[in-house]
Amino acid sequence: MAPPVPVLLAALAALVLAAATAAEASSASAFAVASNASAGAVVGDKLNVHLVPHSHDDVGWLKTVDQYYVGSNNSIQGACVMNTLDSVVDALARDPARKFVVVEQAFFQRWWAEKSPTIQAIVHKLVVSGQLEFINGGWCMHDEAAVHYIDMIDQTTLGHRMIKKQFNKTPRAGWQIDPFGHSAIQAYLLGAELGFDSVHFARIDYQDRATRKADKGLEVIWRGSRTFGSSSQIFTNAFPVHYSPPDGFSFEVLAEDVIPVQDDLSLFDYNVQERVNDFVAAAIAQANVTRTNHIMWTMGDDFNYQYAESWFRNMDKLVQHVNKDGRVHALYSTPSIYTDAKHASNESWPVKYDDYFPYADSSNAYWTGYFTSRPTFKRYVRVYSGYYLAARQIEFLVGRSSLGLFTSSLEDAMGIAQHHDAVSGTAKQHTTDDYSKRIALGASKVERGVNTALTCLTSSNGTCVSSVAKFSQCPLLNISYCPSTEEAISATKHLVVVAYNPLGWERSDFIRIPVNDGNLVVKSSDGSIIESQLVEVDNVTSNLRKFYVKAYIGISTDKPPKYWLTFQASVPPMGWNSYFISRPAGAGYNSTGDVSTAVSPSNDTIEVGPGPLKMSFSSASGQLKRIYNSVSGVDLPIQQSFLWYRSSEGDTADSQASGAYIFRPDGNTPTAISSPVPLKVIRGPLVDEVHQQFSSWIYQITRLYKNKEHAEVEYTVGPIPVDDDVGKEIITRLTANMVTNSTFYTDSNGRDFLKRIRNYREDWDLQVTQPVAGNYYPVNLGVYIADGKYELSVLVDRAVGASSIQDGQLEIMLHRRILKDDSRGVGEPLDEVVCVDQDCQGLTARGTYYVNVEKLGHGSHWRRTYGQQVYSPFLLAFYNEDETSSKSYSVAKATMMDANYSLPDNVAIVTLQNLDDGTTLLRLAHLFQAGEDPVYSVVAKVDLKKVFGKRTIKELTETNLSANQKKSEMKKLNWRVVGGTESGPTPLKGGPVDSEALVVELGPMEIRTFLLRF
Amino acid sequence: MAPPVPVLLAALAALVLAAATAAEASSASAFAVASNASAGAVVGDKLNVHLVPHSHDDVGWLKTVDQYYVGSNNSIQGACVMNTLDSVVDALARDPARKFVVVEQAFFQRWWAEKSPTIQAIVHKLVVSGQLEFINGGWCMHDEAAVHYIDMIDQTTLGHRMIKKQFNKTPRAGWQIDPFGHSAIQAYLLGAELGFDSVHFARIDYQDRATRKADKGLEVIWRGSRTFGSSSQIFTNAFPVHYSPPDGFSFEVLAEDVIPVQDDLSLFDYNVQERVNDFVAAAIAQANVTRTNHIMWTMGDDFNYQYAESWFRNMDKLVQHVNKDGRVHALYSTPSIYTDAKHASNESWPVKYDDYFPYADSSNAYWTGYFTSRPTFKRYVRVYSGYYLAARQIEFLVGRSSLGLFTSSLEDAMGIAQHHDAVSGTAKQHTTDDYSKRIALGASKVERGVNTALTCLTSSNGTCVSSVAKFSQCPLLNISYCPSTEEAISATKHLVVVAYNPLGWERSDFIRIPVNDGNLVVKSSDGSIIESQLVEVDNVTSNLRKFYVKAYIGISTDKPPKYWLTFQASVPPMGWNSYFISRPAGAGYNSTGDVSTAVSPSNDTIEVGPGPLKMSFSSASGQLKRIYNSVSGVDLPIQQSFLWYRSSEGDTADSQASGAYIFRPDGNTPTAISSPVPLKVIRGPLVDEVHQQFSSWIYQITRLYKNKEHAEVEYTVGPIPVDDDVGKEIITRLTANMVTNSTFYTDSNGRDFLKRIRNYREDWDLQVTQPVAGNYYPVNLGVYIADGKYELSVLVDRAVGASSIQDGQLEIMLHRRILKDDSRGVGEPLDEVVCVDQDCQGLTARGTYYVNVEKLGHGSHWRRTYGQQVYSPFLLAFYNEDETSSKSYSVAKATMMDANYSLPDNVAIVTLQNLDDGTTLLRLAHLFQAGEDPVYSVVAKVDLKKVFGKRTIKELTETNLSANQKKSEMKKLNWRVVGGTESGPTPLKGGPVDSEALVVELGPMEIRTFLLRF
Repeated sequence: MAPPVPVLLAALAALVLAAATAAEASSASAFAVASNASAGAVVGDKLNVHLVPHSHDDVGWLKTVDQYYVGSNNSIQGACVMNTLDSVVDALARDPARKFVVVEQAFFQRWWAEKSPTIQAIVHKLVVSGQLEFINGGWCMHDEAAVHYIDMIDQTTLGHRMIKKQFNKTPRAGWQIDPFGHSAIQAYLLGAELGFDSVHFARIDYQDRATRKADKGLEVIWRGSRTFGSSSQIFTNAFPVHYSPPDGFSFEVLAEDVIPVQDDLSLFDYNVQERVNDFVAAAIAQANVTRTNHIMWTMGDDFNYQYAESWFRNMDKLVQHVNKDGRVHALYSTPSIYTDAKHASNESWPVKYDDYFPYADSSNAYWTGYFTSRPTFKRYVRVYSGYYLAARQIEFLVGRSSLGLFTSSLEDAMGIAQHHDAVSGTAKQHTTDDYSKRIALGASKVERGVNTALTCLTSSNGTCVSSVAKFSQCPLLNISYCPSTEEAISATKHLVVVAYNPLGWERSDFIRIPVNDGNLVVKSSDGSIIESQLVEVDNVTSNLRKFYVKAYIGISTDKPPKYWLTFQASVPPMGWNSYFISRPAGAGYNSTGDVSTAVSPSNDTIEVGPGPLKMSFSSASGQLKRIYNSVSGVDLPIQQSFLWYRSSEGDTADSQASGAYIFRPDGNTPTAISSPVPLKVIRGPLVDEVHQQFSSWIYQITRLYKNKEHAEVEYTVGPIPVDDDVGKEIITRLTANMVTNSTFYTDSNGRDFLKRIRNYREDWDLQVTQPVAGNYYPVNLGVYIADGKYELSVLVDRAVGASSIQDGQLEIMLHRRILKDDSRGVGEPLDEVVCVDQDCQGLTARGTYYVNVEKLGHGSHWRRTYGQQVYSPFLLAFYNEDETSSKSYSVAKATMMDANYSLPDNVAIVTLQNLDDGTTLLRLAHLFQAGEDPVYSVVAKVDLKKVFGKRTIKELTETNLSANQKKSEMKKLNWRVVGGTESGPTPLKGGPVDSEALVVELGPMEIRTFLLRF
Repeated sequence: MAPPVPVLLAALAALVLAAATAAEASSASAFAVASNASAGAVVGDKLNVHLVPHSHDDVGWLKTVDQYYVGSNNSIQGACVMNTLDSVVDALARDPARKFVVVEQAFFQRWWAEKSPTIQAIVHKLVVSGQLEFINGGWCMHDEAAVHYIDMIDQTTLGHRMIKKQFNKTPRAGWQIDPFGHSAIQAYLLGAELGFDSVHFARIDYQDRATRKADKGLEVIWRGSRTFGSSSQIFTNAFPVHYSPPDGFSFEVLAEDVIPVQDDLSLFDYNVQERVNDFVAAAIAQANVTRTNHIMWTMGDDFNYQYAESWFRNMDKLVQHVNKDGRVHALYSTPSIYTDAKHASNESWPVKYDDYFPYADSSNAYWTGYFTSRPTFKRYVRVYSGYYLAARQIEFLVGRSSLGLFTSSLEDAMGIAQHHDAVSGTAKQHTTDDYSKRIALGASKVERGVNTALTCLTSSNGTCVSSVAKFSQCPLLNISYCPSTEEAISATKHLVVVAYNPLGWERSDFIRIPVNDGNLVVKSSDGSIIESQLVEVDNVTSNLRKFYVKAYIGISTDKPPKYWLTFQASVPPMGWNSYFISRPAGAGYNSTGDVSTAVSPSNDTIEVGPGPLKMSFSSASGQLKRIYNSVSGVDLPIQQSFLWYRSSEGDTADSQASGAYIFRPDGNTPTAISSPVPLKVIRGPLVDEVHQQFSSWIYQITRLYKNKEHAEVEYTVGPIPVDDDVGKEIITRLTANMVTNSTFYTDSNGRDFLKRIRNYREDWDLQVTQPVAGNYYPVNLGVYIADGKYELSVLVDRAVGASSIQDGQLEIMLHRRILKDDSRGVGEPLDEVVCVDQDCQGLTARGTYYVNVEKLGHGSHWRRTYGQQVYSPFLLAFYNEDETSSKSYSVAKATMMDANYSLPDNVAIVTLQNLDDGTTLLRLAHLFQAGEDPVYSVVAKVDLKKVFGKRTIKELTETNLSANQKKSEMKKLNWRVVGGTESGPTPLKGGPVDSEALVVELGPMEIRTFLLRF
């Protein structure tokens, strides 16, 4: 029988009472104690054990994010985030003393969107009361090694703004408990500048941890920025063991190791005294390595709280009985409450600088492999990072229109991709495929939006109809697949190439597109013919194209295009320019785009480079010998080679294998790819190319453009052969004649450069166990070395691991194919394979790095400005225009800015985004550190009126980094540090922005965030 | 910060709304559909799939009952019943459409007792609304093979009365889903007579199941009683597969096989159509083997709903989407709703008689081993079953006093012990130890209560002081351990033995107690000396005593007692008598208790028996040859031997091993224990004993008492040797010269005798695969065979397995020691070992069976009446009285009844119990089936006024069997059966009890239950 409505309501009324007094279920005194805990009521004269209930929910790892969310595929891992969130909310509603911290917004927002308004209202109350606290609050718990700082900001902003909108809350604590090492950027930028008071994590080097435990130095004041020093510091809590509770205090439903608190005297196995004793013992042990009388217990683990009541029921009892015992004081807490208690203690804390890389958990287990693992996925993420930035600019340019916020199609996918098992390359293959699929789906929608927006922007009437998109784009351009450009071009049907420049500067870059016609002319928007060059498409590229176009988009492409057509495009800042490629009308037209041909070396040394920058190679060995520049006067003897480390499968002393996370070479001397390497040199007016087949599976093209100061090196590595059953980790190595004193420099998430000293750590006396793997560092922007004369810099197009194992050397790990798992959970060897029907091959990675040599002290300008170009290449769109049709194409060239205005070289716009609340988010970033460059490490000014040209800024609000609070309302805790106040100079920072003048000042490394209304 | 109270209340108010409209979380239409389901709204023209959410919670098995309850010891099995009940209540409160059935009260009542009044109020509403339904409702889901019907009634009554008291509900459905075969008693007594409309279970013979699936005969009208026929029938639902859901429809939290219903289009892997298709396909498959358009899906499994929301979330979605699809109709249901739907269909159902034993799940997997597994535990349970009955009578006799209801100390332990993995012998050893410990703890409290009560009853003033207990009892009397009787007896310090007789008849039985004095005199309460006999304690008993007293109660006993003192005690019905044993004052007193001595056989055949019943043995072989009785004229050639089956370890054709559940002999011919067996015959005035050492580990004493019509055979079996790595299953076999036509008779739970025909099943054409194991049946009372002339009957002292493998033979399995596990879950070989310090031995089992031969048609009287004596032996208590002290002992002999009144031979009082509500529970049982005996299978009358002597019955209410509803208010569903109405005679039943006359009539096999007020 159905209960009549009055019965139902009566039952529900009872439910209210139940929730109000549920703590009585265990005991009345438990309720009282827990209520104190709820108040964060620490006890002054006792050891306070802060129980922080949490679940660590990887945004994809062994399963995909949605599998984790809905709880499918449990045979891989029993995990369902719906269970966690549903049951946590029930458990919190049952007793106001209980607390829980929610971290990953990718999961929370999936859940939130499915909930009824009434459940949402309950959650809202729990958040307001502080029972449910959002910490970290980004879309995921991002990786800290292989992520770009702009992606970190984006994914954090996405989560923070949703929390702000839904709950009017700003997370106060960083919670990076699982990432495999911790970056300087995380500390000062994604920490202090977000407005976090603290950051908490589990993973630091095992030697570092031992030292810190001995010195009670696990908790520090971290000054991640040498530029900002104490002005961007953060209280940092590295856990003494891991992010799980002390042994015996996990209460996950169905877990084997659960020891319930059995306090019912009418049942057997009553164990209260034993459990309390164990609790006190574990607390004292932790207190012995911790400053102050506050310790934190992380009450949770991966995908825990599948049934939250199992945890809370036992924690309620622990709080009750431990506090009745009285030796220590237990309370429900959160990282914020904990940090406040630490702050209130007035303790002095050690200071920590720079970062926590590399991370090792034992002597042969350096987690430096994942800096490079899955290089093509890392590139895929980086491509769409830059693309996403550009597309949002275009979305802004086209204005709020019927197109809507089409770029939001990528926000979930890009947010997820920054997870510490996503771009890190440490997820299972099927999960990595899922990440890629999400990006591909999101990108294709954004692409359609961009194509439509460009159609609007370039059309005369400027009206935007979402169904009309003349343009197309070519995501597989790097392997010469671009149907629009490959299409037959005739006298009446020409190809329009529009290049959008997301940078704040006018820019002149080379465009390379595949074509099938040897007789083409490129015209600029004013009708003038510009110089172009044709280079035959090489076989390696043709083969890649055939295999991967079929593999990735299912299209069989029988005929590769014949040529790469290269020309130089010049595009205004935050604007576009159009190029028109056609077949000359008359026969025998003297094309400027002659086909470049291979040149045979005429003597021992062959010199290439159409401009002042030259490289010379040995004709016999194919070996690079020198880089020199007739204008700058640089002249550096240098070699370049490919080598591979043999992946360790473990040995008798230590079974640790090299794998997705860990780089453990079998021997510290890599095997060189044998030389001589035949050279094929192609020369032309715009670019000289040196083609080298290093082996059957390594191909390299070095390009020197006529007016560029760097060499562009395109490598194609793979399939890495493993028929010898040996895993291989491939590096490219530059060996220059430089005395570098064990020192090299790598960037932190694409931003600050940090000094690295081989076989040395600033924080402790390093015991060297892995002389190669232990010196690898993550690189996102670049790496350089310097001697008394020169700086040798390399910029990269994706996250990689890099090092300098010998003075004068730089090595970059490009690709890895490994046959063993390294026992850190992923459970698969990192053996990437791509299949077309039954034909499966090891993954081939193609990429580019950029080499520059400058005189000492002059490298930073190139690294910073060209680094921006690498991150933000031209966004290219194509249009096959029939000249006989009406001329819809009218705005061939434009810029958002005032004519002739340009950002200074030391400033970039890292975000320009229309938000759904009608505001526009703007972030400006100074690109130089303090002291990095004599010219550019100064306060820069940006005139916003000129940046936005015709648009008028009605309102400007400066915010914190994630735009969830006003800058003026940010609060900072002051901390005492060991050794007293900092002695460094006060950092330069821009002052408040005058709402009339609208000029923004930025000090070195400063990023300023604004919400604008136009 | 702690939320202020108003915030809290607001949150709770929101929670109410949430619960009311939670179904919106999935969708509004889901709510509507589910609401229909809530109403049990089946759809007439569609296939209705009744989803019955349940969790099968073993009351101990791999873990102990309390470990299961609190969720400890999860490394053995992830299971926590607190989680189930906590989370189910939350889940039901969330949506009124949801339902759940709660079964085992041992768990529910533990939980209920811990809950706050407010949680209890919520549960109360859920029960009232029908969302939470109690089914079965006993303390456990009792076994059906190795349990006594009185224990079944007791444990069911315990649960049912609590449910009645707490919720005013009477369970309507039997839910015996897991027991390994199903008894006739379960059907008519613990089914129909309880007031159940239906019973549901999963386990029936695989051949039977196949036949029934083909005939759509899984659901039947079961008439378990040949006496009652259709008047005690029940709708019976045997599941087509098991008690889990169809494959793919389990939604247990963290389970590997969960396939969530993913109906969020914004996420990947949307699978609604696929899941609906699978649902419909599974429903149709089941409909194809089921009558009517109603099928039941058992939505749960062992210890499921650890987080109930995981199930309900998915079932909600299934109900929604399946009903939207429309091919079939899904609804939340319960066995009651399902049964009502079946009943409403007006279908005709096949009729099933007798029982569902034995159960086999495949050709070599007959679950007939557990009939005997753990024989000493089975005995322990049986001992306390009878003891509990007696103790409650004593509690009643002493009246409501300061002693309180002391027998309730055993109710939980005895209730638990009836579980289908407890007394069945199929739990792990540590769990079995836990069952024993519970009984021991409970029994020791009851013993103290009885000792005190007897002190009151026998004292002159009759006042009861709980701290005063003169008496002690001897639970280890069977191995000659009884400190009170072993104590030195002098002229001034004598031993008082009080014997309480729980039967309704005057009774004269032999008492055997160990003593250390050869010169003792036994006096009756009137001071007259009565005959006694001393027999030396044999070495086997002395050794058992030493080892087991140390092993079980930790006491080292260096000196065994010298003698068994035997005398015959005569005790009035439901009363006691006292015997005074002392040392004669004068020296050289001519004791009547001469020590019996062994007699050497004087010729080929030795004849024993002090009375008319004689047995003759071969002097040479020791073999029994004949039983004859000079009075009854019976004379039957008969042999007796011990044999053992070799336990199969599996073979190449089938890896099935013999084990705790399954009896699979390796070969069907058991090995005989070699003869000749030396005889030692001891004669005396009261008893003749034949001692036989069959092997080093089998000892047997056959006792013939002077005025008894049966032989008492005490066997001591063990430690079963396994040094040959062969598991052994020991039987005793009687081989009589009788032509028995493949037929034998075994009781059903100690009550009805059922006819068994070797290698035959009434319900299907049996394919014989296990000619021994497949013919074993459970025995609790006895087994007999008959030919044209005689009935050969054996009564047992505990549950055993028995059979007749050849005509004229009876075999009883006494003990099993097996070295392999039989792969049905328990995961341990049935290899019982007992240790004293480091000395571990295989368990020795000592027991008794009773052999009787009567002329055809005259066996039942002995079986029924002596059967009651075996179940309810004298309760013996001892008191060492110093004659010099004041005479506190005054009431040496008494009866509850009127003097000279006695129950008729065909009626027993099976329950007399003071309840906590001030009433007294009385159950009277007719002991004979219809047609079983020409004299006794008639209506019997009991004059309650005389039964209760001086007490006056103020109020008498007849109830159903479990005393949770008035008999007059019981409703019975009528069912149509295939073949129309029953043709048998109307059963005799007693009429209503006149409240003045208070005479109760009982028809054959009738049990009548009354609540009395005095």
